[in-house]
Amino acid sequence: MSPGVSRRGLIGAAGAGAAAAVAAAGAMAASRTEPAAATFRTVPFFGARQAGITTAAQDRMHFAAFDVNPSSTRADLVALLKDWTLAAARMTRGEGAGPIGPLSGPYDAPPDDTGEAIGLDPGNLTITIGFGPTLFTLDGKDRFGLAARKPDALIRLPLFPADALVAGASDGDLCVQACSDDPQVAVHAIRNLTRIAFGRASLRWSQLGFGRTSSTTSAQVTPRNLFGFKDGTASLRAEQTAEIDAHVWVQPGADPKATWLEGGSYLVARKIAMHVETWDRSSMREQEGIIGRTKAEGAPLSGGTEFAAPDFALPGRGGTPVIDARSHLALAHPQHNDGVRMLRRGYNYVDGSNTLGRLAAGLFFVAFVTDPRTHYIPMQTRMASSDRLSEYLQHIGSGLWAVPPGAREGEYVGQALFG
Amino acid sequence: MSPGVSRRGLIGAAGAGAAAAVAAAGAMAASRTEPAAATFRTVPFFGARQAGITTAAQDRMHFAAFDVNPSSTRADLVALLKDWTLAAARMTRGEGAGPIGPLSGPYDAPPDDTGEAIGLDPGNLTITIGFGPTLFTLDGKDRFGLAARKPDALIRLPLFPADALVAGASDGDLCVQACSDDPQVAVHAIRNLTRIAFGRASLRWSQLGFGRTSSTTSAQVTPRNLFGFKDGTASLRAEQTAEIDAHVWVQPGADPKATWLEGGSYLVARKIAMHVETWDRSSMREQEGIIGRTKAEGAPLSGGTEFAAPDFALPGRGGTPVIDARSHLALAHPQHNDGVRMLRRGYNYVDGSNTLGRLAAGLFFVAFVTDPRTHYIPMQTRMASSDRLSEYLQHIGSGLWAVPPGAREGEYVGQALFG
Repeated sequence: MSPGVSRRGLIGAAGAGAAAAVAAAGAMAASRTEPAAATFRTVPFFGARQAGITTAAQDRMHFAAFDVNPSSTRADLVALLKDWTLAAARMTRGEGAGPIGPLSGPYDAPPDDTGEAIGLDPGNLTITIGFGPTLFTLDGKDRFGLAARKPDALIRLPLFPADALVAGASDGDLCVQACSDDPQVAVHAIRNLTRIAFGRASLRWSQLGFGRTSSTTSAQVTPRNLFGFKDGTASLRAEQTAEIDAHVWVQPGADPKATWLEGGSYLVARKIAMHVETWDRSSMREQEGIIGRTKAEGAPLSGGTEFAAPDFALPGRGGTPVIDARSHLALAHPQHNDGVRMLRRGYNYVDGSNTLGRLAAGLFFVAFVTDPRTHYIPMQTRMASSDRLSEYLQHIGSGLWAVPPGAREGEYVGQALFG
Repeated sequence: MSPGVSRRGLIGAAGAGAAAAVAAAGAMAASRTEPAAATFRTVPFFGARQAGITTAAQDRMHFAAFDVNPSSTRADLVALLKDWTLAAARMTRGEGAGPIGPLSGPYDAPPDDTGEAIGLDPGNLTITIGFGPTLFTLDGKDRFGLAARKPDALIRLPLFPADALVAGASDGDLCVQACSDDPQVAVHAIRNLTRIAFGRASLRWSQLGFGRTSSTTSAQVTPRNLFGFKDGTASLRAEQTAEIDAHVWVQPGADPKATWLEGGSYLVARKIAMHVETWDRSSMREQEGIIGRTKAEGAPLSGGTEFAAPDFALPGRGGTPVIDARSHLALAHPQHNDGVRMLRRGYNYVDGSNTLGRLAAGLFFVAFVTDPRTHYIPMQTRMASSDRLSEYLQHIGSGLWAVPPGAREGEYVGQALFG
C-alpha cells in the first residue's frame, strides 16, 4: 500500500483484509459516514523550519519528553529520528503512523498504527522535535559522539528562586511537542511515536494541555489562562518576521560549534502550578494590580487597548505608578528585559486534583527563543524573586531543548547534527 | 446587573467598571472580536430530566467527586445544591457562574466567576449532579437525616475480581459530570462549582476526558477508544425511548422509600487503565478476537455491519465459534446479560505518564442505568473474571451515584429528596 493513502482511504483496504479472515461470515459492509480526507486541515511537516513554532497555535497539546535508552547506539538514535520523521510526516497528513496503517497489513502482526485517530481530521497537527542537553553529554560522558557539537546555550536551566521541581515533569534527552485542534489526534501522535521508539528511547514524562494560552498569528483572539486573564498579549506573532528572526530563530554564526542548529530555535518548557483557589478569593483590584492589566480587555492599567504600550511612569492614586513595578506586566515587559521578546506557545492544564482537594491546575509554559541565556533566564530570575504573581504560582517542571531547523522531504529532523 | 446577561454582554459593563479605576489613563477601547452569544450552542439546564444523560455526547468531559465537609449541616447541603443549580444554569447559558460575572461587581471583592470562559461558546455544556451512598450514611451515621430515603440500589459498588482501586479516583458524597465540546468550558464549570462549594464541600477527585467513547444519538458517528476500536456500538441512543425507559430511568414504584429518584437514574463511573503498550504489540488477529469485532468497521466477527446482530453460534475454523465466548462482545452482549442495556457516556483519558515510562491512559467509563444491581454488577462480575480483554485493563477507580430527575426553573437539583 502506498504511504500516501489517508487513514480514511485505508478503511476500504482493511475491510478487505478483515473480510478474508472472517470469510465464512460474509462480506464487510461500508463504513458509516466519516469526515472525508479532502476536508482535512493539515500543516506541512517538511520545510525549512519545523512546524509548530510560528504555526497558528492549535487549541490542544500533548507534550512528551523521552530518554534514549542507555544501551542505544548513535546508529539507533539516527534510526529513531528517521523513523520519527517519516511517522510524523504521515500523521500530519492524516495518515496512519506507519506505511501499512491501523487496519491492514499482515493479520498475524500488530498494526503499525494504533487506530484511535481513524477518520479524525488532523486538526492542523504539528509535531516538533527537540534535543536536550543530556542527549549530548550525560554524567560527563559523550554518549553519541555529539559533545563537540553541543551549543553553549543548551544548558540545563538553572534552579530559579522558589522553583519546586517535582519528579516526572523536567528535562529529557528528546522532546516532542504535538499540537492539534483535536486532543485525540495529539495523543495519538505521542502514543505512536512512543511505540515507534520502543527499545531505543522511552517516555520520561508527558503533559496534556487543553486550552492554548497564546496566539501566534495576528488573526487569533488572545486566549485566557486559568487566572481568567488574557495571556500572551506581548508574545510575537508570525507576521512579525523581523522580530522573529531576531528573537526566535538561531542565526548563522551564533555558535560555530553548532551550525546544525542555525535556522532552528530553543524550546523552554516550564510547568507552572497555579493556586487557583487562592487567586479566586482575591479581589478584582488585587488581581488587576498583580497582572498590571485589566481583566476585561487585557489593556495595560495605564490605559488604551490590549495592544497599547504600557506607560510605566503614569502616576495613579497617591502618586505611585498606576502599573505596579512588581506587576507581571512590568517585570515581563521587553522595556525591562533588554528588549528581548519571545514566541510563546503555552497551554492551560488540569491534572485532576491533588491530595489537598485542590485542582492540580496551571500553565504549561512553552516559549521559543533564539538563546535562553539572553531571552529567558534573566527575565525568569527577576520574576521568580520580584513578581507579585509568584505568590500564586509554583514552577514544578522545567526543560530546555534545542529545536533543529526543519527537514526537507528525504531528510530527517536533526540530520545536520549527525552529518 | 441582570443574571440574564451573557459573558459576552458583561464585557462592556466591566469595561466601564475598570475604566473608572484607571480613569486617569483614559477610556477603555472596545474588545477584539469574540464569538457572539447569538451563535452559542446551548443545552437547557432545567427540565424533567437532568441534561447530560441522553444529550448528544459532547466531545470533552471534566468529572468531579466532592465530599460534604464534616461540619456541614443539612441546611448547608441544601444551600449548596441551590447555589450549584443557579450557577450551573447560568454557565450552561454561557453566562458567568454568579449573578455579577467575571468582570464586574465590587472592585474590592473577588469576581463571582473565574473568567477563563469569557467569550467561549458553551459548546453544549451540560452539568449533571449525583448523590453518592455516603451522602446518606457514613460510618453508620445518618448525616443529614436522609438515611430513611436512601434507595436500596445506592450501594458502594463491590470490589470486583482484579480491581486495583487507587486513592483519589473512587467514591464521593456528590458527583458532577460537566461535558462540553470545549474542554476549557468543562474545566471552568467544575472549577467554579468547586469554588462555590468552599466551606461546605470539597473536591475529592476529578478527571478530565479528552475524547468521547460513546454516541448517545443515532446521528453521532461511533468514536474509537484507545485500543483503536469503535466503542459503545451497543450503547442505547436517545431515540430508543422505550429501551431508555426500561433500562435508564428509575421507574415509579422502583423503591417506595426513594420516590424522589423516580425519573432519575444511576451513574456508574469506572476509571479503567488500559495497558496500551502491551495492546499495541498484539496482532490484529488477537485484537479482533479479543474484542469480537473487526477493527475497521466495528462489525461482529460473524459478519454484517457495525450494528448487525452477532451470531454467537456461527462456526469458524476448526468448528469453534467465530466470536469467542470470552470476547468482549460476547460477555457484554445483552443476550448473555439477561437482556440488560445501558446508556454509556465514557471518555478517553491520558493523565501524563507513570513512573514506568508508560502513558497513564485509559477509559473513564460512565454508564447510566435504572438499577446497578441488575444492570452493571452482574455483567462486570462476569467480565472481570472471564473477559479476554481484562489482560489489558485494570480498573483503578469506581463510583456510584443516584442522579435525581431534573429541576424546573425555581427548583433545585434533588429538591424532592429534602422536601
